[in-house]
Amino acid sequence: MSGAASDMETSQSSLESSEQVITPWEVSGSEEAGIDYDKLVNQWGCQRITPDLVAKLEAVTATRAHTLIRRGIFFAHRDLDVILDSYQRGEKFFLYTGRGPSSGSLHLGHLIPFLITKYLQDAFDVPLVVQMTDDEKIYMKGLGVDEARTLCHENAKDIIAVGFDVKKTFIFSDLDYLGGDFYRNIVRMGQLVNLNQAQSTFGFAGETKLGMVGFPPVQACPSFSSSFPHIKSWHSARDGFKPDAASKKTNDKGEKSASGVRCLIPCAIDQDPYFRMTRECAPRMGYHKPALIEASFFPALQGAKGKMSASDETSAIFLTDTPKQIKDKINKYAFSGGQQTVEEHRRLGANIDIDVSYQWLKFFLDDDDELARIGEEYARGRMLTGEIKAKLIDVLTDLVVSFQRRRAMVTDDMVYAYMAVRNM
Amino acid sequence: MSGAASDMETSQSSLESSEQVITPWEVSGSEEAGIDYDKLVNQWGCQRITPDLVAKLEAVTATRAHTLIRRGIFFAHRDLDVILDSYQRGEKFFLYTGRGPSSGSLHLGHLIPFLITKYLQDAFDVPLVVQMTDDEKIYMKGLGVDEARTLCHENAKDIIAVGFDVKKTFIFSDLDYLGGDFYRNIVRMGQLVNLNQAQSTFGFAGETKLGMVGFPPVQACPSFSSSFPHIKSWHSARDGFKPDAASKKTNDKGEKSASGVRCLIPCAIDQDPYFRMTRECAPRMGYHKPALIEASFFPALQGAKGKMSASDETSAIFLTDTPKQIKDKINKYAFSGGQQTVEEHRRLGANIDIDVSYQWLKFFLDDDDELARIGEEYARGRMLTGEIKAKLIDVLTDLVVSFQRRRAMVTDDMVYAYMAVRNM
Repeated sequence: MSGAASDMETSQSSLESSEQVITPWEVSGSEEAGIDYDKLVNQWGCQRITPDLVAKLEAVTATRAHTLIRRGIFFAHRDLDVILDSYQRGEKFFLYTGRGPSSGSLHLGHLIPFLITKYLQDAFDVPLVVQMTDDEKIYMKGLGVDEARTLCHENAKDIIAVGFDVKKTFIFSDLDYLGGDFYRNIVRMGQLVNLNQAQSTFGFAGETKLGMVGFPPVQACPSFSSSFPHIKSWHSARDGFKPDAASKKTNDKGEKSASGVRCLIPCAIDQDPYFRMTRECAPRMGYHKPALIEASFFPALQGAKGKMSASDETSAIFLTDTPKQIKDKINKYAFSGGQQTVEEHRRLGANIDIDVSYQWLKFFLDDDDELARIGEEYARGRMLTGEIKAKLIDVLTDLVVSFQRRRAMVTDDMVYAYMAVRNM
Repeated sequence: MSGAASDMETSQSSLESSEQVITPWEVSGSEEAGIDYDKLVNQWGCQRITPDLVAKLEAVTATRAHTLIRRGIFFAHRDLDVILDSYQRGEKFFLYTGRGPSSGSLHLGHLIPFLITKYLQDAFDVPLVVQMTDDEKIYMKGLGVDEARTLCHENAKDIIAVGFDVKKTFIFSDLDYLGGDFYRNIVRMGQLVNLNQAQSTFGFAGETKLGMVGFPPVQACPSFSSSFPHIKSWHSARDGFKPDAASKKTNDKGEKSASGVRCLIPCAIDQDPYFRMTRECAPRMGYHKPALIEASFFPALQGAKGKMSASDETSAIFLTDTPKQIKDKINKYAFSGGQQTVEEHRRLGANIDIDVSYQWLKFFLDDDDELARIGEEYARGRMLTGEIKAKLIDVLTDLVVSFQRRRAMVTDDMVYAYMAVRNM
């Protein structure tokens, strides 16, 4: 089970500690140290992904773990062990991830959860729901409804281009889909959380838009399979599908025996507050707590102290960038851990922990041996910043160009197919 | 147009003044004076319904105004004159009213808005939407979803028994219907109001359930015709149906030219805060401000200082009560404005302003002449409390028994027919 501390005990401390501020809308580390992930894991009560757990994942799936897991980029979890155990017992689960469309194109950081989700869908052969939180973006960015829908459509094409199986993938916008028990689950959860609790978990203030204040259950409730009665494939799960748990008896904590299909959520760790709230409510709603697999932040070109932002052009490589833009941005902006002069560099080597090119290669260079060799050469000063940047430019140009090739083949009709409420 | 003070200016003062507290969830007047409606009208910035406006209503509809209007029970409005003017110009409008099911049966007080709504539907020949706020009741009363749905179904039968035309009436529960632009409108409004404003308008506190905090736009948005694209009859309106107003230009106040079909909302005045908020947001959403026709409270059997409550059995006559229960409750609980002894009563007469039997007859005795005669006789002491109670028992027994006869003929299939999302 996930951790000694209950979710409840840790849920009040989600906001700023002395220096770092992590909410689903703001990520900033301290000036000196960047993000302190140990602190985050301790404060929030999630678990580190251990080598043993990675080994178990590989054994259960008979698949090598994804580089993003092997390299500790997905570094924390809640109940991933429970998911693996139940999967081994023959129980199905489903994947849930999401995207808040705020610009017409995804950047590389946005891609991370989808890459791991694609790997998990393939390795476990499970259904996936992708929530497009157009409503959240309207509250947070002041977009118009039409604008949000246009961005959603474009972003959905990006997501489809990652390669998800249309037969097992349902992409939906909150503006279009509130079917099944989805809204009913939102209402149930809205009765279990009060304004005080939401304010302390999410940092809502008097100026926060009312819609945003009411939004957390909307992001929470795709964690429950009864929100998607049209995804029939999990009806065959041993732990049968029961759309309404209302008639079940509660224990003295107000909890009901859990029904429905388990859920695993790949996301960046800044989304943890939503799912901590979800995990507190789930037993009282008669559902399993969703499990999580959580990533550290993809660093901005300028360095590891924040996360990449779609609103700062120069901080990110977009999936629409041309090879020339990729080359120019990396050469110009990618923060270097190398030394000021070639002589010094040869003598002292680079600090690869803060070097953005090396950090980005950890995300996107598949070959473990090559990555190790580059790290070694660069840290020892035998490789220069210009050389590691050239390598990164190669890797990203390949990635982005091949992505763009797939993206160009995604038609409007394909978007409608993935987003159709259909028997699956 | 409705009043010199803008909605905005008056919206911050909706809560308690010195003595009386009126919110959508709490109604209590001062000990001495009961509810001070003049104060309410001034504070909230609505308008009194004048004899001239009643005359205009009668002229426009070529129908005598309903007793509840003639007798000043529906005493306040917002933009009713605008609705009448536009109707005279040939523009259609629709009616919107609602019900929060909290008990299996309606009481007489619940019936009031539906009686006036039925009259308005007939007089103007317009469509009607009836929102069942099951979600609100879950937040406020802690009902389970299944329980709320059962109450909704039973309450819908009561509403249908009032006699609404199924071809022009759509009854929906928020748990089932969030179609058309309904949720999109909720999201738009959720972006225009912040937490501070909602707290000052509705009195939300830290302990308020999160769902309830997010709820006001849900009650607000059935005011906009784009929430109901399946009600085609108003497409023929001169002021054409435009489901999405996003592309329209805004003026320097952020307001757009209004589209959609106008809405008239009959309700008790405690619901005004919801629609004050709605009217503030509507122009920025590109919609007409909904108009209102607002009732004073139906007094409890025990007297006029509060409103009838479904949770206090003895305060109300329920539509399920037997003739014997009606007789016993009125004889036992109906607050009398008569004197202590027959002799004193003959000498001083009754105070009909505080006499519940007389007040209730004002609501339910159709014959104006008879009501005037009873008022006169009773006030002069020529009629005794026992006699006016006997008259009230007659009137209510007739009303309730004939209601029960119609209610018994309402089948489950009829409920499904009124609640079906269908081309209308």
